[in-house]
Amino acid sequence: MKRKHLLTTKDLQPAEVEEILQNARSFKEVSEREIKKVPTLRGKTIINLFLEDSTRTRTSFEIAGKRLSADVINISKGGSSVSKGETLLDTAKTLEAMNPSILVVRAHESGFPLKLSENLKCNVINAGDGSHEHPTQALLDLFTLVEKRGSVKGMKVSIVGDIAHSRVARSNLYLLKTMGAEVRLVGPASLMPSEVESYGTEVFYNMMEGIADADAIMMLRVQKERGGLSSFPSNREYARFYGLDKNKLAKCRKDVLILHPGPVNRGIELSPDVADGKNSLILDQVSNGVAVRMAILYLMGE
Amino acid sequence: MKRKHLLTTKDLQPAEVEEILQNARSFKEVSEREIKKVPTLRGKTIINLFLEDSTRTRTSFEIAGKRLSADVINISKGGSSVSKGETLLDTAKTLEAMNPSILVVRAHESGFPLKLSENLKCNVINAGDGSHEHPTQALLDLFTLVEKRGSVKGMKVSIVGDIAHSRVARSNLYLLKTMGAEVRLVGPASLMPSEVESYGTEVFYNMMEGIADADAIMMLRVQKERGGLSSFPSNREYARFYGLDKNKLAKCRKDVLILHPGPVNRGIELSPDVADGKNSLILDQVSNGVAVRMAILYLMGE
Amino acid sequence: MKRKHLLTTKDLQPAEVEEILQNARSFKEVSEREIKKVPTLRGKTIINLFLEDSTRTRTSFEIAGKRLSADVINISKGGSSVSKGETLLDTAKTLEAMNPSILVVRAHESGFPLKLSENLKCNVINAGDGSHEHPTQALLDLFTLVEKRGSVKGMKVSIVGDIAHSRVARSNLYLLKTMGAEVRLVGPASLMPSEVESYGTEVFYNMMEGIADADAIMMLRVQKERGGLSSFPSNREYARFYGLDKNKLAKCRKDVLILHPGPVNRGIELSPDVADGKNSLILDQVSNGVAVRMAILYLMGE
Repeated sequence: MKRKHLLTTKDLQPAEVEEILQNARSFKEVSEREIKKVPTLRGKTIINLFLEDSTRTRTSFEIAGKRLSADVINISKGGSSVSKGETLLDTAKTLEAMNPSILVVRAHESGFPLKLSENLKCNVINAGDGSHEHPTQALLDLFTLVEKRGSVKGMKVSIVGDIAHSRVARSNLYLLKTMGAEVRLVGPASLMPSEVESYGTEVFYNMMEGIADADAIMMLRVQKERGGLSSFPSNREYARFYGLDKNKLAKCRKDVLILHPGPVNRGIELSPDVADGKNSLILDQVSNGVAVRMAILYLMGE
Repeated sequence: MKRKHLLTTKDLQPAEVEEILQNARSFKEVSEREIKKVPTLRGKTIINLFLEDSTRTRTSFEIAGKRLSADVINISKGGSSVSKGETLLDTAKTLEAMNPSILVVRAHESGFPLKLSENLKCNVINAGDGSHEHPTQALLDLFTLVEKRGSVKGMKVSIVGDIAHSRVARSNLYLLKTMGAEVRLVGPASLMPSEVESYGTEVFYNMMEGIADADAIMMLRVQKERGGLSSFPSNREYARFYGLDKNKLAKCRKDVLILHPGPVNRGIELSPDVADGKNSLILDQVSNGVAVRMAILYLMGE
Repeated sequence: MKRKHLLTTKDLQPAEVEEILQNARSFKEVSEREIKKVPTLRGKTIINLFLEDSTRTRTSFEIAGKRLSADVINISKGGSSVSKGETLLDTAKTLEAMNPSILVVRAHESGFPLKLSENLKCNVINAGDGSHEHPTQALLDLFTLVEKRGSVKGMKVSIVGDIAHSRVARSNLYLLKTMGAEVRLVGPASLMPSEVESYGTEVFYNMMEGIADADAIMMLRVQKERGGLSSFPSNREYARFYGLDKNKLAKCRKDVLILHPGPVNRGIELSPDVADGKNSLILDQVSNGVAVRMAILYLMGE
């Protein structure tokens, strides 16, 4: 694989995905060693341009880069001249002129990483853009499912919540279908994307119907900061219909795998006992995130 | 020594303290070399989770970690998803899942590092929690006194100011007593902790009585941001009773050592001439802070 | 060269400047290699103390330091105890006590780096102080001109805009004159410094007269955040008189070089087509900035 950009999971081929997963397996082992460091990207510069607040994704990319021995530069919106009226494309072009190997970008604007890839020569990784895509999240979710079950081929995966506004849902939907899983979308009609029928997936408005025989359930974060819940009178009301608690879980498959991209709104989309319970893979996802991002940085930056 | 967490100075044994001081002496020498770097923690990840503003402590830990060749990750409250409604314990668990060797944590909430130590598997260092403890500050203060006098055994140390709200006072009190110093607490009755009598130390409400024959005076910072002075009509009034200026200093021992954890409110707890005077060890404390933190990171992270 | 501080371009001697440019040429080649890293400053600590928002200068210094293998520590105003009432000089003295080799400082207060150099023992680099100076910007501008033309001796360079409030203008003026260029200052009378006559340069209030036969034009940023335009009714009005667009450019020399320190206010001081056009060296300036700063850090930190 020699890929220039990672903007979406839509254009990923199965062979390429397998290569990422295979490398991630090796790199996961690096993070479990005493000496969590390999010289792979020594002398390369990775810039994390995070134009939206983030802890886990930014930290995950930073740790991934440093464990590969790259020089990692963090730029966040606060404290930068991003507030000085320059266009964001100019900011990115400026950073590119400093010769980074890879620009990792999170942006509020859907499509901003694509715009960068069309205007820059350096490699671009989309670390989440608006309500569009979050491809590394989907890849780490896939890695986590494959780690547990060997393959997602034929696996029934239900994605639950605010599908319309979720970049995590969109990236997972494309990738899971590419890798042979059967995806179901679950949520209120008001939070389904208008183009949902073109996805060729089953859509459920009743949660239990959508998750009862699922092999895995991906609970989406309620994006309070992006106003995704305006159609619900309250968080409690949302939780009652589309949150996962032990009562709903009791009616699912015993070995159902539960994922969540974090940060979790405890008591809204997930009850605390389910978030911390034995079916939950939330912390595995985080650990695997470092490994998967090491694999991606390695395959793109080398 | 193989200690898992450093949360308080209360449970430190003299032998363990001596080991920290001895290692700090070697590491101080590293910071004075041309090449200020040793490979000790190469391939280890240290996460600085600073949930309160800080320059000196965060920078001190960052420099200490980097001089030991660790990968150091800074996370501050601004620009992180700490604002996204996730619980702080979830944030910490997420970070732990990325396999750091040590989590250094500063928090507004007293007891938060203890809570982390009970819920996480990685090593936790308390870098200051609310008005509870600040053990690395006490250890660097001790190092500074021992460097000047050889030992604190029998030394008279007066801690002056807002004792009730000071994590620095609390950590120093425990540690100094363990190491054989005679501690005196000096301050207004309204700023003495309610349990002060249980400490078994002398308490002085008149400053000169409390510091007249002291070998060392630790001036506490007036924590304007934590409302510690609500009982005083003005800073000037506070300074008159409990600030240290050249007039009060003239009535102390000639060779009295003056410490302050910084940042100094010049003109409130210390007059500028005293802060910059020959008795002041304020900048020695800062230099020694790097060395002591290198020792602690080394002993815990190795 | 063994220079302790870089505070202004006023005291730079031609031989010293040539040494910086020559080293920058070698370091530029490092940034174009596969492995963009040399061990030159391994084990040295560089502190970036940025008390004003900045992306490009802070990032440029950070990348420069890391490509020299130094440990780089970033401190910005947000999230630091700079807000805790300590004086900035105390903050800097505290940082110095941690044994950095070089303190890079950006400050709102004109003359703050000079004050530091008078009070600290470590090397100080001025990364922009108020409306005073920005010497590394002038050096990278010079490097860019020399790279294109071999020398600036006899070159006609027009600096256009808010001369009075521009640290970039001031540093470039001194340096360009030292290196033998003929400098012209162009801008409205209200934005000329009161001492402009003492500079011994031609002053133009009409833009076309000032740039018609220039070999290079340095467009200054309209410092909206520092109130430099209060004398203009609107940005559009400013652009009409002192902005550079294709109409004005058409009346200039065909091969005129156009520089801008960034971030660009597109449509104010530069029209987008000119900013992105073939005469523009804006992105060369950014690339060269890393090389020039590597040279300066190397010559001062070694």
